Amino acid sequence: MHGTSQLAGGGVWEDVVNVIRKYGVVPTSVYSGLCYGLENHNHAELDAVIKAYADALIKGKVLTTAWKEGLNGILDAYFGEIPKTFEYHGKKYTPESFRDMLGLNMDDYVCLTSFTHHPFYTWFAMEVPDNWAGYPAYNVPQKEMLDTTVGALDKGYAVWWGSDVSESGFVYNSGIAFNIPETITTEEGTELSKWADVKTNQRAEMVKKMLKGLIAEREYTQAERQLAFDNYETTDDHGMLLTGLAVDQDGHKYFKVKNSWAESGIYKGYFYASYPFFVYKTTEVAMHKDALSKELKARLGYN
Amino acid sequence: MHGTSQLAGGGVWEDVVNVIRKYGVVPTSVYSGLCYGLENHNHAELDAVIKAYADALIKGKVLTTAWKEGLNGILDAYFGEIPKTFEYHGKKYTPESFRDMLGLNMDDYVCLTSFTHHPFYTWFAMEVPDNWAGYPAYNVPQKEMLDTTVGALDKGYAVWWGSDVSESGFVYNSGIAFNIPETITTEEGTELSKWADVKTNQRAEMVKKMLKGLIAEREYTQAERQLAFDNYETTDDHGMLLTGLAVDQDGHKYFKVKNSWAESGIYKGYFYASYPFFVYKTTEVAMHKDALSKELKARLGYN
Amino acid sequence: MHGTSQLAGGGVWEDVVNVIRKYGVVPTSVYSGLCYGLENHNHAELDAVIKAYADALIKGKVLTTAWKEGLNGILDAYFGEIPKTFEYHGKKYTPESFRDMLGLNMDDYVCLTSFTHHPFYTWFAMEVPDNWAGYPAYNVPQKEMLDTTVGALDKGYAVWWGSDVSESGFVYNSGIAFNIPETITTEEGTELSKWADVKTNQRAEMVKKMLKGLIAEREYTQAERQLAFDNYETTDDHGMLLTGLAVDQDGHKYFKVKNSWAESGIYKGYFYASYPFFVYKTTEVAMHKDALSKELKARLGYN
Amino acid sequence: MHGTSQLAGGGVWEDVVNVIRKYGVVPTSVYSGLCYGLENHNHAELDAVIKAYADALIKGKVLTTAWKEGLNGILDAYFGEIPKTFEYHGKKYTPESFRDMLGLNMDDYVCLTSFTHHPFYTWFAMEVPDNWAGYPAYNVPQKEMLDTTVGALDKGYAVWWGSDVSESGFVYNSGIAFNIPETITTEEGTELSKWADVKTNQRAEMVKKMLKGLIAEREYTQAERQLAFDNYETTDDHGMLLTGLAVDQDGHKYFKVKNSWAESGIYKGYFYASYPFFVYKTTEVAMHKDALSKELKARLGYN
Amino acid sequence: MHGTSQLAGGGVWEDVVNVIRKYGVVPTSVYSGLCYGLENHNHAELDAVIKAYADALIKGKVLTTAWKEGLNGILDAYFGEIPKTFEYHGKKYTPESFRDMLGLNMDDYVCLTSFTHHPFYTWFAMEVPDNWAGYPAYNVPQKEMLDTTVGALDKGYAVWWGSDVSESGFVYNSGIAFNIPETITTEEGTELSKWADVKTNQRAEMVKKMLKGLIAEREYTQAERQLAFDNYETTDDHGMLLTGLAVDQDGHKYFKVKNSWAESGIYKGYFYASYPFFVYKTTEVAMHKDALSKELKARLGYN
Amino acid sequence: MHGTSQLAGGGVWEDVVNVIRKYGVVPTSVYSGLCYGLENHNHAELDAVIKAYADALIKGKVLTTAWKEGLNGILDAYFGEIPKTFEYHGKKYTPESFRDMLGLNMDDYVCLTSFTHHPFYTWFAMEVPDNWAGYPAYNVPQKEMLDTTVGALDKGYAVWWGSDVSESGFVYNSGIAFNIPETITTEEGTELSKWADVKTNQRAEMVKKMLKGLIAEREYTQAERQLAFDNYETTDDHGMLLTGLAVDQDGHKYFKVKNSWAESGIYKGYFYASYPFFVYKTTEVAMHKDALSKELKARLGYN
Repeated sequence: MHGTSQLAGGGVWEDVVNVIRKYGVVPTSVYSGLCYGLENHNHAELDAVIKAYADALIKGKVLTTAWKEGLNGILDAYFGEIPKTFEYHGKKYTPESFRDMLGLNMDDYVCLTSFTHHPFYTWFAMEVPDNWAGYPAYNVPQKEMLDTTVGALDKGYAVWWGSDVSESGFVYNSGIAFNIPETITTEEGTELSKWADVKTNQRAEMVKKMLKGLIAEREYTQAERQLAFDNYETTDDHGMLLTGLAVDQDGHKYFKVKNSWAESGIYKGYFYASYPFFVYKTTEVAMHKDALSKELKARLGYN
Repeated sequence: MHGTSQLAGGGVWEDVVNVIRKYGVVPTSVYSGLCYGLENHNHAELDAVIKAYADALIKGKVLTTAWKEGLNGILDAYFGEIPKTFEYHGKKYTPESFRDMLGLNMDDYVCLTSFTHHPFYTWFAMEVPDNWAGYPAYNVPQKEMLDTTVGALDKGYAVWWGSDVSESGFVYNSGIAFNIPETITTEEGTELSKWADVKTNQRAEMVKKMLKGLIAEREYTQAERQLAFDNYETTDDHGMLLTGLAVDQDGHKYFKVKNSWAESGIYKGYFYASYPFFVYKTTEVAMHKDALSKELKARLGYN
Repeated sequence: MHGTSQLAGGGVWEDVVNVIRKYGVVPTSVYSGLCYGLENHNHAELDAVIKAYADALIKGKVLTTAWKEGLNGILDAYFGEIPKTFEYHGKKYTPESFRDMLGLNMDDYVCLTSFTHHPFYTWFAMEVPDNWAGYPAYNVPQKEMLDTTVGALDKGYAVWWGSDVSESGFVYNSGIAFNIPETITTEEGTELSKWADVKTNQRAEMVKKMLKGLIAEREYTQAERQLAFDNYETTDDHGMLLTGLAVDQDGHKYFKVKNSWAESGIYKGYFYASYPFFVYKTTEVAMHKDALSKELKARLGYN
Repeated sequence: MHGTSQLAGGGVWEDVVNVIRKYGVVPTSVYSGLCYGLENHNHAELDAVIKAYADALIKGKVLTTAWKEGLNGILDAYFGEIPKTFEYHGKKYTPESFRDMLGLNMDDYVCLTSFTHHPFYTWFAMEVPDNWAGYPAYNVPQKEMLDTTVGALDKGYAVWWGSDVSESGFVYNSGIAFNIPETITTEEGTELSKWADVKTNQRAEMVKKMLKGLIAEREYTQAERQLAFDNYETTDDHGMLLTGLAVDQDGHKYFKVKNSWAESGIYKGYFYASYPFFVYKTTEVAMHKDALSKELKARLGYN
Repeated sequence: MHGTSQLAGGGVWEDVVNVIRKYGVVPTSVYSGLCYGLENHNHAELDAVIKAYADALIKGKVLTTAWKEGLNGILDAYFGEIPKTFEYHGKKYTPESFRDMLGLNMDDYVCLTSFTHHPFYTWFAMEVPDNWAGYPAYNVPQKEMLDTTVGALDKGYAVWWGSDVSESGFVYNSGIAFNIPETITTEEGTELSKWADVKTNQRAEMVKKMLKGLIAEREYTQAERQLAFDNYETTDDHGMLLTGLAVDQDGHKYFKVKNSWAESGIYKGYFYASYPFFVYKTTEVAMHKDALSKELKARLGYN
Repeated sequence: MHGTSQLAGGGVWEDVVNVIRKYGVVPTSVYSGLCYGLENHNHAELDAVIKAYADALIKGKVLTTAWKEGLNGILDAYFGEIPKTFEYHGKKYTPESFRDMLGLNMDDYVCLTSFTHHPFYTWFAMEVPDNWAGYPAYNVPQKEMLDTTVGALDKGYAVWWGSDVSESGFVYNSGIAFNIPETITTEEGTELSKWADVKTNQRAEMVKKMLKGLIAEREYTQAERQLAFDNYETTDDHGMLLTGLAVDQDGHKYFKVKNSWAESGIYKGYFYASYPFFVYKTTEVAMHKDALSKELKARLGYN
């Protein structure tokens, strides 16, 4: 696309689905992808060199035939060469046969979202940079998105969750994500430094009060949810895994979320996202067809 | 798309089709779009301010609700406000009713292309920046693309033509576009200035010889056509109108092309594109369904 | 000026004076200028798009005639169209007639400053970017600037105050602005990060001590005031309103200042600026002619 | 001005006037200003380092007290130190006493211009970047500007001339400057390279025809002159000296112009500017008060 | 070098040695180098203007002969002109004669380092930007580098120390530098802001525990030391002076370090660097030949 | 070097020498290095991606261990993997054994230069970006450099030649390189476009006259040669091969030069460089020790 499409480390749920469908899957023990001297995944340098490499290419007027192999040369250096066959628990597999052995049918997974700039109960491609390939998601009202997700966890299914984690209310170190009401919204453009201090202080105090239960969490309507997306407040930041449901001593309901940031934070890699936060800040959820409600399953033509 | 999609003055044929389908059409005499002090269209300044305006928006973290109206404010300043109703030859119209009066059914137009990175006789969205909206074109072998286009002109249909005009062989001032064989392809990266002179001289001599008929035009295979697209040699430059067929004194065949660059060049706004140039450098052609061959019409499900 | 003059959201007191003189004034209830979805003024996005729009224009070699109307299109989108007539308390006004009804004679306002790079008791245009239009201010010794301002407030006049608010001693959240003595002035260029921590810590401690009254405030001479302006330490940051005088339990004197940052800080939108801070950091003050001392009024030719 | 004013090698006529008034003048034989290894003036490197030095300063938050002396250090290196006293034809002078000996009274020079965005017969500061200091010029109708200039040369006075030399009609190598009519004004933003060739060819042909006298020169009205200034077509490029009047074999009238580009072009450093070019493209002219018409002298209060 | 070598305020120990050898030395009381209005050294502005000046020069295609004198003009403005002769304690000196009077023989100083990408007991030029001139250092095992430095201080010699001070364990305000073990090394590129908070918190806790003696300091092997240099973790940040040895109540050993950051931190300009920190983070040490061990002195050919 | 050294496609003669010495050499028929779809060498894209890749790395704070292998991945994609063994004319070789079979002793080659900023008859590392590794050349007077080179060709040795080919006098398409006298050296910084035309015209005329033998070639002294290097006029552009000597009909002497720009120009890849051009514009020559004069061979310690 001559540089007019995003090239970055991120992607969406469907990228994973699509790759497994097309190429299969390999156990981590066989292919860790860690050939760059660290014990955990950190793609900062890889992302930087891939982007630089591609940007240099598109500045040229004419491309050679070697660029794709050069790109693979970089990827192989950081991840290792992809195994064509491998042994696992005494048996020999290809990535494809391993996927089939696991019984993964990628067509059984469905991605839900909830916005009003497209009609409900239709498919549309979410307009976010990470969705560079234009994968469609199925659009439902926010209440149905919540209920379906809760229902899925109730049935014992884990749910993939795409959300915005650059919010003031995403207090990861305290193991919680909730909606913080903001009272001051004015910001004069020219005196930013002093004024930014004022706002940062106010937010920090708000978080403290929220953690002590002194302020009720704010709930947002479907229209407010839409506005936050339209005006770039809600961004497509991070993908995590919903693994359970929880209720606190005051009766507030949460999803238990498994994060990929090692064993950090007070819950050692897990945290709790409130239902209102989920409703306001979810970009997409993805789950197995059997995790859906009957009605939704029918609408989507699964049997 | 937070800036990861193209925003520029250009677009593709289907943009026009789509706008007429959605909003209708207005006669030039009613709405010239020339509110900026020039007698002919020149969007350089408009393109620049629109891009700057949008780039400034996406740098912000949060958008206001006024940006869209501000954008319209700019467009209205350069083009004038779009007429909701207007009179034409004594009758009153809306853009929609004018389109209907003209008998334009936008679903009757089809766009053809010819590349091998997708199967022939399938639809795919050409991967060029101007095709920002992902409109699909129908993929046929290059010979069929040529034959269909010749056939359409034979039947009296004009054909929209998207092509690459930044080629050495696009000798607009001489009123001709053909394929120039290049013999020197070496280019040492470090001594560019002197070496570029060598190449420019050689190309200019080649053009002179071509114009005198001293060298035969080069024809390219489907594979070479594909390579030129893959390696950025063929770019999606410009849309024009094929209005006729022509043969020169040596029997070479040409399309007569109507350009939008005023009455310039030796043919006052027209020029001739050779069949081999058309085959090698066409990105897309678009025509009315009735201009297609019977076979293609059938394949595409038109009756 | 082809981009060699400042275009930004800021301006100086005289810009307001001049606009009211030329175009009149409108009550906020009639024209809030808030058409962009926020409840309070935040011009960050507007400033960004205006700047981008203008920068794109000046890069072009030739301008069209539509650019000014495009600019107005943006302004109208964010502020709304300026009312030509409006009703207020049952009467109909134009902006001009409303100004006249209010009895505002813009020639009755005068702007004072105090610097030594121009002679005292002469007018000169302050050399700061926001003074893009070259408005002159009247130059007096710093003591006279202080005394005149105190005198104006004593007589019951509010005073417009332009000052530098990006100082360590501008402790807005604590509701105070005073001069903090800095003892360490060394800063080795190459080890910035660590060294900056050292300085930040030291300043924070100094502020704490000042707030507890453990350190006396530093007073600056006219020469030191000049140096701070000459070497870019004093910048033309922000305009506020002086609304009263105050004395603390230790006898230190302050101006009560009304800020435009909503009801923030411990005094809900107000704070106290010490006299020494005022003397050191004021760029300009503006007041009604009747608020001036007799002598100054005479010097300026007011009767 | 923190970088919001122009710093460049250029300036306006009044800069010269002002410097002589303030500091005096020195003969070239005493102070050539050529201390950088060339035999003629070329300030490219000096301009670049001065701009870079100043840009680096304004990026800092606080200035030291040494920057001005550092700037002088650079200037002294390229120009040499300014002589405080010097001997000339056996007598000793200071720059001031030399100016006085020459009988130069800088208040005797006046600068004329002709635009309609300010009233005629008033002074205004031309809004061009080189006029960074806001010097005013006296505004007269374009015909009066022409007549006064012709009158001055008739009386034997040389006239300083500020004009736009980046025009197609400024054919310096052929020793002439005239107005070339342009017929094609369209320019589609997206296909620039090919289209630019078309325009360049057309202009070159137009120049050839003009030189052969095949096309009449275009004359412009005061309104067209204004438009060319407003839309950045007329720029404040270059200062030269009008030294005489000339008529060609067809009766067209010209100013003889002395340029500062060494003995270049067919007239060895001189060229001829047509009256219509002068009328259309002059930004300012400057002359001695005694060169003015009686009426203008009176209007300006000279006796 | 046309800009392909570093030009910055920093340098290495040998730059000092070399300048004294070539030009001599002057007492601070005679030549403070403080001509820019500050009481202590701060080269930020000077570095910026020197870099800008040089960058502007290398962009030109051809240089004039004045640039070097212009550079000296800047340096003289900030530092003052270098004294050719001066009086000190009643005697007259040149810089050279003053150096000789002090008995400084610059060939008596030697610089040690310890890396494995060159053989031990050979000289090599450290590949760091500040070593722009390619000065060689003598390579010894890290244990020998430590022992030699301790031995030198034992004998009463001060030792110059080049080290990396941008480490988390360089806790200057607490007066200590030690190695902090890091446990979390994962960092996902795309969610930087939140994740960075997690890491910063963890580091801060680690520092607190270290300061309370709750965690043992980590020691690094020669191979780990090398890796930190190879992968840019160890950088050539800052030069200081080792002036003594110390042991804390738990028996841990330290160098007492004199810093040049005024009387800052809890030890008023001094701090303590642990032996393990020294071993891991030293880039170079330099000392007098008589401070070396007998063996090393012999190896280096000193008698 | 953290980006403070040059990384580019170019290098110096000694790079080739050094690589053969260290790794051996392989026949072109075995390893063409052309794996990127072109028939001749064009490293533009490769240079661009390598530079981008490295620039991205040095922006990171810490490097992974995979970067070097990623770099090799790119190189292998464009050049192919380096053969460890290969067959040539029926025999099996390694690169090292092939070099030895050829009888190449890289220590037998010597590089000469001629500048006065280092003493003659000493070695120094030429201060040009391509000499990133600091290889030394042997410094001789320019006459001796010429005589030695002529002597070498007389004895039948080809001579490697590093020279500046971005000169006006390097008229490659006409097959000649000579020194063109320039008469106009003035260039006013502000009116570049018009003035540049003047200079370009003048140079083109000078070249025409030179080609017709109407002007004598200019010869430069050692001091002028030095100045051209010092002020960036002479740059280290291109390496070629001197293969013979020639004299024209007027007795002017030339080197016959073999270029690497395919069979271009009127001599199909060859051209003639005049002795004065060689003397003025040579940066370095390299030849076999046996091609040297007896005296030079002795000075250099060859037997």
